[in-house]
Amino acid sequence: MDKFFEKTLSSKEVYKGRIFEVLNDEVELSDGLIRPREVVVHPGGVVIVAQKDSCVLLVKQYRYPVHSAQYELPAGKLEKNEEPFGAAKRELLEETGYLAKNWESLGFIYTSPGICTEKLYLYKADGLYYEGPKPDEGEIIDCFEFELDQILKMVKNGEINDSKTICGLMRAFKL
Amino acid sequence: MDKFFEKTLSSKEVYKGRIFEVLNDEVELSDGLIRPREVVVHPGGVVIVAQKDSCVLLVKQYRYPVHSAQYELPAGKLEKNEEPFGAAKRELLEETGYLAKNWESLGFIYTSPGICTEKLYLYKADGLYYEGPKPDEGEIIDCFEFELDQILKMVKNGEINDSKTICGLMRAFKL
Repeated sequence: MDKFFEKTLSSKEVYKGRIFEVLNDEVELSDGLIRPREVVVHPGGVVIVAQKDSCVLLVKQYRYPVHSAQYELPAGKLEKNEEPFGAAKRELLEETGYLAKNWESLGFIYTSPGICTEKLYLYKADGLYYEGPKPDEGEIIDCFEFELDQILKMVKNGEINDSKTICGLMRAFKL
Repeated sequence: MDKFFEKTLSSKEVYKGRIFEVLNDEVELSDGLIRPREVVVHPGGVVIVAQKDSCVLLVKQYRYPVHSAQYELPAGKLEKNEEPFGAAKRELLEETGYLAKNWESLGFIYTSPGICTEKLYLYKADGLYYEGPKPDEGEIIDCFEFELDQILKMVKNGEINDSKTICGLMRAFKL
């Protein structure tokens, strides 16, 4: 058995919500120890680094779990049976009002792999043209164009603290 | 009322586990709409960018929620009433066997602010001296020294996909 492997012995859904579920599993480690594992099962999502000339689009919205408004790259959850690339086009339009001619995959990240399945697919988009935003009802969100230099300052000085946003920038601009 | 604000109308704990809890809250948006909010309440944690000459320490461990082994910066959860800086020193020693003479705060990140309270405090450490690792029982973890150049390649080519690790590197090396 691979040293880095945990075998599922049992799995029990203990919470089922609108966005995620919680599992209480029992696993066997490679050294034979039995351990409990708590897992948040998340549908995954997409993050878009949309470049417009020397600027990148950021959105601002209130994030209730952290009780503050955050500047973030446009992003959103996968809908049921939705492909990541389709979700990326949908979320960019909904949150910013832009369509994009050119798309590039930047791989994926895990936001919190110790407790959560959340996998976010990262994309870079350019060749933007404006169609008009289509926010979800109950989504209060503003879109901004920031110079990339300014955004990198905001990452350094702590005005941007959202992990997917920092990861997207690092992958997009090969920092 | 600030446009970017959600007022808690009610809050109910619907799951209480070993590591996190789940709340089902009801909030009022700034436009008066009432919305449900699902929140994973996490204790928060620390992430350490430990530099040894031209190398950075990474650990490898199996992450059950994403069913794969990940290369990550040393990191761990805050214990009850633990200060982040104390936790950073504890986790670096436990996971790598190193103590460090010099520490610098790199601010914090939110790993998944749309659903989870998880706040991770980032630190840079150097002036390392070896004491011997103290892994938690049931923690199967290996420590590696990688050249920074090699690590940045691993971020670009998708061998490193852990968000806190990418964020820690970006803040530590002002990329």
